[in-house]
Amino acid sequence: MPWHQTHIRLRPRPRGFHLVTGELVGALPELARFKVGLAHFFIQHTSASLCVNENADPDVRADLARWFDRAVPENAPYFEHTAEGPDDMPAHVKSTLLGTAVTVPIRDGRLALGTWQGIYLGEHRESGGARTVVVTLQGE
Amino acid sequence: MPWHQTHIRLRPRPRGFHLVTGELVGALPELARFKVGLAHFFIQHTSASLCVNENADPDVRADLARWFDRAVPENAPYFEHTAEGPDDMPAHVKSTLLGTAVTVPIRDGRLALGTWQGIYLGEHRESGGARTVVVTLQGE
Amino acid sequence: MPWHQTHIRLRPRPRGFHLVTGELVGALPELARFKVGLAHFFIQHTSASLCVNENADPDVRADLARWFDRAVPENAPYFEHTAEGPDDMPAHVKSTLLGTAVTVPIRDGRLALGTWQGIYLGEHRESGGARTVVVTLQGE
Repeated sequence: MPWHQTHIRLRPRPRGFHLVTGELVGALPELARFKVGLAHFFIQHTSASLCVNENADPDVRADLARWFDRAVPENAPYFEHTAEGPDDMPAHVKSTLLGTAVTVPIRDGRLALGTWQGIYLGEHRESGGARTVVVTLQGE
Repeated sequence: MPWHQTHIRLRPRPRGFHLVTGELVGALPELARFKVGLAHFFIQHTSASLCVNENADPDVRADLARWFDRAVPENAPYFEHTAEGPDDMPAHVKSTLLGTAVTVPIRDGRLALGTWQGIYLGEHRESGGARTVVVTLQGE
Repeated sequence: MPWHQTHIRLRPRPRGFHLVTGELVGALPELARFKVGLAHFFIQHTSASLCVNENADPDVRADLARWFDRAVPENAPYFEHTAEGPDDMPAHVKSTLLGTAVTVPIRDGRLALGTWQGIYLGEHRESGGARTVVVTLQGE
């Protein structure tokens, strides 16, 4: 079983950063078959992102959202792509900054995340809806 | 054919964000041979970047450039690496922020990008010239 | 030898950006066995990061640190995750912005970095201590 590729549909979440490690791993029983490998998670959207950070204190996720909302303000006078609402162009900037993919090592059938690491969904729209992640597992 | 690695020379472009999905895919007829896999694109420069965002409205790319030019100003008084011109150190910061690589899933011989996603070249110099991308395809 | 996975313990460094290509490659004699492939470097921490930028002038790394310290200020009034010191929450933001992983192509037994590229450790804490990087090599 060298390759496994599937889609995972993340349930809708409000704007902000959300810990989704459990939802992703829960949909991937195939992880257990890999002794060593890589797991690639790719979100097929341009106003959301995937990233890795602290899995414990929810204040970190809220502070992260507050920093991003200040760094990428809504209604900036130089934004011209405004037809889809004030949260749209900032969402594109945040998604580009944070990226649409994370690759995590697999070791002994599990993601080899650090003790304090988790995978975040960055939801940058007010109502982004369900989000599709293409997962590609490979290894031996 | 589990691995295919090649260089693609992207033609010179002006400073800004440019949709290069077509130029990349057009140079990769080998994609068609992979049922499932990953495509890794790596730009061998420190003042340009690769990222993924909206493939439709060019205003998104222009707004992105305007946001980055404000977030990373030229002639900041604390920059000391100034010998190569005012656009050089900001280019290094933007390249580091956005990253030099994107990895995209392959499905049924095509890049499994979302409907609205494309691959951007971030050209952060005024005259960066042609840019080299190392492409590594793997799969089965 | 299609897969090789190991841990590398980077020695402690002060806050800032540090060129670690030599320390990483020196711990990976296995690179020589791959004609073509990918090297994935993943740091198992939430207040440090890995990225790629200029390998020559140390001013670039110092300017990068100065830019990040201004973009993500300590003691921002909206930060609530403050119990671990003023450098902690900014470190989480920087780590999320820059990312915890880099993937570099392998060609003829060596990392296919550009002439001017090196791998940086972004150490975002004052005293982050030694940092663990999981390295996964694959190829043929």
